[in-house]
Amino acid sequence: MKNVIGILGGMGPAATVDMFQKFIQFTPATCDQEHIPLIISSIPDIPDRTSSILHGGASPLMAMDERIQGLERAGAKCILIACNTAHYWYDELKDRCHVDMLNIVDSTINEIIKTGKTKIGILATDATLAIHLYQTKLENQGLTCLIPEGSNQKSVMESIYLYKSGEIDKAEKLMLVQRDELIRRGAEVIILGCTEVPLILHRVIKDEPTLYEDSTAALVRAAIRWYHTH
Amino acid sequence: MKNVIGILGGMGPAATVDMFQKFIQFTPATCDQEHIPLIISSIPDIPDRTSSILHGGASPLMAMDERIQGLERAGAKCILIACNTAHYWYDELKDRCHVDMLNIVDSTINEIIKTGKTKIGILATDATLAIHLYQTKLENQGLTCLIPEGSNQKSVMESIYLYKSGEIDKAEKLMLVQRDELIRRGAEVIILGCTEVPLILHRVIKDEPTLYEDSTAALVRAAIRWYHTH
Repeated sequence: MKNVIGILGGMGPAATVDMFQKFIQFTPATCDQEHIPLIISSIPDIPDRTSSILHGGASPLMAMDERIQGLERAGAKCILIACNTAHYWYDELKDRCHVDMLNIVDSTINEIIKTGKTKIGILATDATLAIHLYQTKLENQGLTCLIPEGSNQKSVMESIYLYKSGEIDKAEKLMLVQRDELIRRGAEVIILGCTEVPLILHRVIKDEPTLYEDSTAALVRAAIRWYHTH
Repeated sequence: MKNVIGILGGMGPAATVDMFQKFIQFTPATCDQEHIPLIISSIPDIPDRTSSILHGGASPLMAMDERIQGLERAGAKCILIACNTAHYWYDELKDRCHVDMLNIVDSTINEIIKTGKTKIGILATDATLAIHLYQTKLENQGLTCLIPEGSNQKSVMESIYLYKSGEIDKAEKLMLVQRDELIRRGAEVIILGCTEVPLILHRVIKDEPTLYEDSTAALVRAAIRWYHTH
């Protein structure tokens, strides 16, 4: 069995489908056998990440660790986590993991640096922003971060939960207002720093792809490079 | 960990994404945690099924068995195989498997019987037709099977391989001609008896959904019932 990539997903399931779909889309293949080998865990009863970080809810750490062990037992040689907020526990999960693990934040920031743009908007969960998952590393590179403030960030969060509950049109409407606000404030590129955001905005992304840095896509590209060098 | 469903996929990967997507689509859920738990193996270096059955190519049995064992080690309690032709080895795989396994052909035929229709068209691979995977069971129910003959079936097979190689528009064009021919011959409903066919025809299926019996969708519905009764 080749170097199988394991995806810790289910946070949420639609974002996991999106990551799976992007592996196929980004792999030029003329037959089944040329595609990247994947094992995907989409066991969504993992406690809510934002709720745990900000509101003292149950920790998702044990559930995530358990599913990563399952992926390893099934043969995965490199783990991806299909959720930005879950990267709060990245170091702990990496310590417990026996195979390689790639980081969605690092993969995204590596691509942002290559664009040469300096004013970086971020659309992400409350928790991802509160723990400065992106901001610290971007500012260390001398880049300026623009994040939605107050009621604007409340709208971003509402959009993400609306999407998770199947209210797709309402989610898009709310998120577009926040995208426009970041552009108005000077953002040259917007990090889609929650794996639901590329889904919420998928209809507008194709009109102007260089305006966005899709964290899911960045992680998939990093994983394809990992695959071809191992 | 709840009763996790394991999907043996990768045959091909796009059909596996389709099965994953249908689990989400068919599950009314208001948050991540209400979705069906899945572990998906999409390790596509499994030898070609049609080539093995009809042309003496390498057998996919050992590779499929190995991936099912991986799904079991990762915690799967019920296995689905996201490929119709692979069901040629269903009994052997089920014998080696330690958990439940559902059958795509049985799930599809159970739904066909409920429609009350009697003239059943089948779009499937050469091998699926050659081993009478659908015909025997349908005829045992007193139903009439209509399958593409000669150069028409050659077109169906060409369409499936074109789709697998990324030639999506060409694949659709070829398959639509064969769908029309089955209808002209009197088919009241058409079994999409290869997991690539719902993808090839996805643009027309939504215009007239009752004309088709999608084997992927039938297996997903059976699996959701399994989940809610276990």
